[in-house]
Amino acid sequence: MADAQRYSSYKYFNIFFPEQYQYVAHVEINRPDKMNAFFEAMWLELGQIFTQLSHDSSVRAIVLSGAGDKAFTTGLDVKFASQGLLAEKKVADAAREAFELRRHIASFQDCITAVERCEKPVICIMHGLALGLAVDLSVATDVRLASADFRCAVKEVDVGLAADIGTLSRLPKAVGNYGWVKEVALTARFFLADEAKEVGFVNAVYKDKEETVRRGLEMAGLMARKSPVAVQGTKELLNYSRDHSVEDGLRYTAVWNAAALQTKDIQAAMLSGLQKRIPTFEKL
Amino acid sequence: MADAQRYSSYKYFNIFFPEQYQYVAHVEINRPDKMNAFFEAMWLELGQIFTQLSHDSSVRAIVLSGAGDKAFTTGLDVKFASQGLLAEKKVADAAREAFELRRHIASFQDCITAVERCEKPVICIMHGLALGLAVDLSVATDVRLASADFRCAVKEVDVGLAADIGTLSRLPKAVGNYGWVKEVALTARFFLADEAKEVGFVNAVYKDKEETVRRGLEMAGLMARKSPVAVQGTKELLNYSRDHSVEDGLRYTAVWNAAALQTKDIQAAMLSGLQKRIPTFEKL
Amino acid sequence: MADAQRYSSYKYFNIFFPEQYQYVAHVEINRPDKMNAFFEAMWLELGQIFTQLSHDSSVRAIVLSGAGDKAFTTGLDVKFASQGLLAEKKVADAAREAFELRRHIASFQDCITAVERCEKPVICIMHGLALGLAVDLSVATDVRLASADFRCAVKEVDVGLAADIGTLSRLPKAVGNYGWVKEVALTARFFLADEAKEVGFVNAVYKDKEETVRRGLEMAGLMARKSPVAVQGTKELLNYSRDHSVEDGLRYTAVWNAAALQTKDIQAAMLSGLQKRIPTFEKL
Amino acid sequence: MADAQRYSSYKYFNIFFPEQYQYVAHVEINRPDKMNAFFEAMWLELGQIFTQLSHDSSVRAIVLSGAGDKAFTTGLDVKFASQGLLAEKKVADAAREAFELRRHIASFQDCITAVERCEKPVICIMHGLALGLAVDLSVATDVRLASADFRCAVKEVDVGLAADIGTLSRLPKAVGNYGWVKEVALTARFFLADEAKEVGFVNAVYKDKEETVRRGLEMAGLMARKSPVAVQGTKELLNYSRDHSVEDGLRYTAVWNAAALQTKDIQAAMLSGLQKRIPTFEKL
Amino acid sequence: MADAQRYSSYKYFNIFFPEQYQYVAHVEINRPDKMNAFFEAMWLELGQIFTQLSHDSSVRAIVLSGAGDKAFTTGLDVKFASQGLLAEKKVADAAREAFELRRHIASFQDCITAVERCEKPVICIMHGLALGLAVDLSVATDVRLASADFRCAVKEVDVGLAADIGTLSRLPKAVGNYGWVKEVALTARFFLADEAKEVGFVNAVYKDKEETVRRGLEMAGLMARKSPVAVQGTKELLNYSRDHSVEDGLRYTAVWNAAALQTKDIQAAMLSGLQKRIPTFEKL
Amino acid sequence: MADAQRYSSYKYFNIFFPEQYQYVAHVEINRPDKMNAFFEAMWLELGQIFTQLSHDSSVRAIVLSGAGDKAFTTGLDVKFASQGLLAEKKVADAAREAFELRRHIASFQDCITAVERCEKPVICIMHGLALGLAVDLSVATDVRLASADFRCAVKEVDVGLAADIGTLSRLPKAVGNYGWVKEVALTARFFLADEAKEVGFVNAVYKDKEETVRRGLEMAGLMARKSPVAVQGTKELLNYSRDHSVEDGLRYTAVWNAAALQTKDIQAAMLSGLQKRIPTFEKL
Repeated sequence: MADAQRYSSYKYFNIFFPEQYQYVAHVEINRPDKMNAFFEAMWLELGQIFTQLSHDSSVRAIVLSGAGDKAFTTGLDVKFASQGLLAEKKVADAAREAFELRRHIASFQDCITAVERCEKPVICIMHGLALGLAVDLSVATDVRLASADFRCAVKEVDVGLAADIGTLSRLPKAVGNYGWVKEVALTARFFLADEAKEVGFVNAVYKDKEETVRRGLEMAGLMARKSPVAVQGTKELLNYSRDHSVEDGLRYTAVWNAAALQTKDIQAAMLSGLQKRIPTFEKL
Repeated sequence: MADAQRYSSYKYFNIFFPEQYQYVAHVEINRPDKMNAFFEAMWLELGQIFTQLSHDSSVRAIVLSGAGDKAFTTGLDVKFASQGLLAEKKVADAAREAFELRRHIASFQDCITAVERCEKPVICIMHGLALGLAVDLSVATDVRLASADFRCAVKEVDVGLAADIGTLSRLPKAVGNYGWVKEVALTARFFLADEAKEVGFVNAVYKDKEETVRRGLEMAGLMARKSPVAVQGTKELLNYSRDHSVEDGLRYTAVWNAAALQTKDIQAAMLSGLQKRIPTFEKL
Repeated sequence: MADAQRYSSYKYFNIFFPEQYQYVAHVEINRPDKMNAFFEAMWLELGQIFTQLSHDSSVRAIVLSGAGDKAFTTGLDVKFASQGLLAEKKVADAAREAFELRRHIASFQDCITAVERCEKPVICIMHGLALGLAVDLSVATDVRLASADFRCAVKEVDVGLAADIGTLSRLPKAVGNYGWVKEVALTARFFLADEAKEVGFVNAVYKDKEETVRRGLEMAGLMARKSPVAVQGTKELLNYSRDHSVEDGLRYTAVWNAAALQTKDIQAAMLSGLQKRIPTFEKL
Repeated sequence: MADAQRYSSYKYFNIFFPEQYQYVAHVEINRPDKMNAFFEAMWLELGQIFTQLSHDSSVRAIVLSGAGDKAFTTGLDVKFASQGLLAEKKVADAAREAFELRRHIASFQDCITAVERCEKPVICIMHGLALGLAVDLSVATDVRLASADFRCAVKEVDVGLAADIGTLSRLPKAVGNYGWVKEVALTARFFLADEAKEVGFVNAVYKDKEETVRRGLEMAGLMARKSPVAVQGTKELLNYSRDHSVEDGLRYTAVWNAAALQTKDIQAAMLSGLQKRIPTFEKL
Repeated sequence: MADAQRYSSYKYFNIFFPEQYQYVAHVEINRPDKMNAFFEAMWLELGQIFTQLSHDSSVRAIVLSGAGDKAFTTGLDVKFASQGLLAEKKVADAAREAFELRRHIASFQDCITAVERCEKPVICIMHGLALGLAVDLSVATDVRLASADFRCAVKEVDVGLAADIGTLSRLPKAVGNYGWVKEVALTARFFLADEAKEVGFVNAVYKDKEETVRRGLEMAGLMARKSPVAVQGTKELLNYSRDHSVEDGLRYTAVWNAAALQTKDIQAAMLSGLQKRIPTFEKL
Repeated sequence: MADAQRYSSYKYFNIFFPEQYQYVAHVEINRPDKMNAFFEAMWLELGQIFTQLSHDSSVRAIVLSGAGDKAFTTGLDVKFASQGLLAEKKVADAAREAFELRRHIASFQDCITAVERCEKPVICIMHGLALGLAVDLSVATDVRLASADFRCAVKEVDVGLAADIGTLSRLPKAVGNYGWVKEVALTARFFLADEAKEVGFVNAVYKDKEETVRRGLEMAGLMARKSPVAVQGTKELLNYSRDHSVEDGLRYTAVWNAAALQTKDIQAAMLSGLQKRIPTFEKL
């Protein structure tokens, strides 16, 4: 079991280790009174949490959800964002302002990328409102599940900017319907759970948040019962494939498995299969 | 309002600026008696039009459609094409012929690529027959909408050639179903509006051409009411993402937004949001 | 007609040349009593067959299926695989073992890649069980058709390893729904014909194996009646596009067609079209 | 012989067709009283000239040099540049200014890239001062020759900007000494002919401008006497290689030569070789 | 002036801010009694230092050198390394060991990459012995200067491993002589200052360490007196170019300079030039 | 010792295993009466030899040279080549001819690429004449050494074609002086040993063939005495780096070494170092 104590210092997220799902961590965005809207301290913390989970050998799969009934997250907290963006600039010229903004964006991107880089699979539970950063964040996870009340928009153009924390880079690679991506990104219109399912943005739709969380935990539990060498290798190789040619993918895969096939998990899994029992795997 | 006069010299295309949709241009292929079939002067003109629209600050979104009831376009005008291809060759050898053909193809490709490079979103209305070049052209736009009578085929293999003006390069990236792309490109079979919707080739199907054009203009109007800095940045970043890794996409995005976030549109959009009124944005 | 004699030496595959479909070859995995499970001699032979078909001018389209009622293939033969993987290692250290494994994986990958590199289109008929290697193999073909009894799983994580013969490199590029790919690869759960159709893994579902084979042969027959210059160029250009930017794709296409447009097939196809008769094309 | 008349409309460049070197064009920057400094109309004209030369079948190799004794070119004309850059901006915000600047830079880059894209080899004669744009321009040519009085600097950082018309993209690929590139680009220090030769920036150093031009014309003449299919293919394939992997380079080369090897030039060249006479090649 | 106090907590490195070179930081590896050999705490600290310098607006150029007379650095401290590598492994199997090693290597690589990612130019002073990690580290800097007593080797193959902290990825791109890179990496033979200069591994050779440090500080001083917008843009764009095609480089450059050209530094630099005085630039 | 018997069936090459250099193979092109000119059977055999050597655990480094006094190789045997190229074509059209030529070129390229893919380092001894294919072949090796009588030309343009077996893809990446590559490829002029050394095409020049071979064997012997895990990893990682970004290089390296660092060779090498004796390493 994971040592929950080691995750107790985080302020804006709850980290649970549900008893019935060994090796599963459940990360909950915990600002329900503000629709789980993000400000800078939150995304910095998010980055730290997933970096820590990535190397925590007692965790093999992760569920990410938002607290409260209303929203997975409504994205950036406008109050905080407007303080930053509307503040009187003190920088000397537009070039220097650009240097500062670039560093700021890059730092923000890194926090979200920590979710993608996390070595363990991450399942994202999307309920209620999911705006702006909600999409940037969710496309850095591996599997998205929606509850029936899911209402989503790539909202950024409505506040005068192009999404820059991952949506425009990752969404077109998560969803095969490129015209749809362009439409929702250029119009900022809402789309609901069924449309999200149809275009492949979410894997499944469940009747409410409660069931969606439960299904997410079950899926995480299923992944967590398998060989972590196999599961974590599969995530890494799929992430690599997205950004490389098939030829490069095959070459990288061969080198990766040259070590990974030396695991005892293969024997353990095969023998368990023959003996019809559940295998156990060493820590990773 | 765009100065329609500046577009009055074009011969094969109508360019409208519908009054009810500010900042929207409507480009119509205008050879309905020949099913809007293309010959060289037409694609050269098409390239010029989209290059001009790209930098016209009175245009923020574009609709592309074909005149007449029968066809978006049936592709290359066989009469013109056969004159070229069947003509007695005068070149000295097959290598020299290849040099000429390569230049010709590249020049043709450039005209179609001008649609993709156009800084403003382009919505393609596809009605009736849409053959060969129709597909090359439509996949260079951002969003495709079909009317119920849409009948489409990647027709090139039926005339003995591989499509070379964009279909084979862009269609697999516009549509996530790669097996489907291979089937329709290798068999040249027809597919209709519903199938096109199902595989994500078109975003929506409407009952007839008239409604499809209207819906396209509405969508263009919606995009045109938003910050042009945000909309044009979003198009550019999505196009960039298609051809680059996520990592490169994030880096390019950060540099792009380092300047774009310095727009006054963000303030304008935010304040308008608070004040429940429609924002106006400076020319771009 | 292809000379069936030249393919008579293969042991684990049947190669048919159905009379009613000129220029079509039908390759059948022939180990039905073992659910068409593979061992090393089989994939080496598979590689040889597709390399031979690639340059056989009497073949223009290929159907691949599995013998028997139960399975397209259940993947690696566990008995053979376990002999290999569970055998007492004699190598000096884990690094040397990794060198051997890497060579072994690369050689195995090459055999499957021979299907993708085959210059002629390959249509894969998937019936019954299709596990593990079944997916690696099928995503190296161009079009997949399923019978209603199709039951498939990316089974590798269940035996403690990440799929390394092509699935993790090619499946995300064959199917636009990336979340779905991650789910099925990380959970090893089964999916059936309808789900496979919905996500675009297969192009169509037919009522049983017999009909699926028939439809596959018809589709192959249709491709084989067209200009082989056009069809083989289209396959090559689509494969190239998958792994390159649109810009690179257009450049490669222009160079390719600079030679391919010099075929007499264009004249033949155009004249046949005008004369309403079926064109014939020279050998390629 | 090229028809010099067709190049008579250019204002800022002389285009010569030296009698003793058949198929050679000599382009001379012609603003010697201002050290051949560039303003916008000049680089637009430069782009047009090289685009025209690219398809002129009477030209097979090109020499580029600067008029006068003092300078190849001192780069941007400060007077013009400062008018542009120091002018009171009228744009609404820094983001809009960035859009305009980006278009301006891209248009400027395209003019210089026209030299690289020119299908014929270009030999650059560098004498006297060569500052800023001189480097951007010269690295878009194929071979650089220097006269002994050559004094060069990547001058941009001294006027507060990063070189953006090609130097930072092409110089590191033209010269293998990356540390040297960083030093000269980050310090803007001068380097002379011998140092330029030592690091491979120029191929050779001759005693004065006159001899350097003569040697350049001789080299161009030598290239122009060879098969234009071979020479132009070689330039294209080398340019392609610079930006692609070896594997992609080999694949592109094979497709290219599949047409190019069908030239009669090979027979002509071989027979001439056997018969010890100078071959002639058809126009290209 | 930089606040040296903020760098006082580092244990294994001295950070100086030489009075005569405004905006220059001098980082010194400070373990001279052990030939500046590295152990893990040192490279972690190195990464932190360069990350801090990267965003310190009082620093515009950096010199990196090693304390003592004998060595820039002899690479990994064998005592520490052997403790790690020779220790009795407790991991369950070779696959799990590989996961741990990969994380370890990646973390180590990140520390060295921090030098390359540092926004300010870094000049590396190489004196005496420079083995193994010395090369990995130096090729992450921008300019290398050697003293006459420099003796260097890519030593890793002599201890049974392939260099993995950057040498094999960066050295072939720093030096144009690929055969030389292969020779020194595959034989581990020593090469001295003159050979290093000849192949472009170092920019210059000076008579002893003292002069080399002085020359390095002068070069850093020269860079630091220029516009930081220009200098830091130049470093970033050159780093980008190394890993991208010319076309991608030009596109990225245009977007970068669209903001950077809006600096007041251009006016300041131009006016200073006209007025023959040294410009001053705002903080960045 | 390698079993020379296993290499006795080759007809056009001698394969020696010099006694004084354990684990070294010496491959000699053996057609000295024809200046070692190649015809098809020879390059097919060459590919087989290097494929066999690649997996022969008794070989750790290879020397490649040409028999006789006059030439490393003068490239293609004109008599054979002209039979092929000048033969009356029987193919139906230029497109079909292009298909055949492309297959032929690709097959030829593969044979030369087998030298690069060979897991062991290859040192190329270049003496006397080295024309055309000599360059294609030599740039697929790792280190080139020249004797003083070396006379080389990228001769292809003189016979009317662009080099297509590797020179145009690999030479620009082997040599940092891109202008020089363009000059010698576009003029086909000769260059001698000293120039080859100066531009980095060869690593060293020795007084005659005999000494060059001896030095090559010594260098191979030196490589062969080191850990084969380290040496072969170094070759693979350097080859990978050439065609990938630094970031991709680091990632691939980390995965590679995650297995390779588990070799006992590191202990063996370190202990031998401490004990001042020559280590021995297990077979690989």
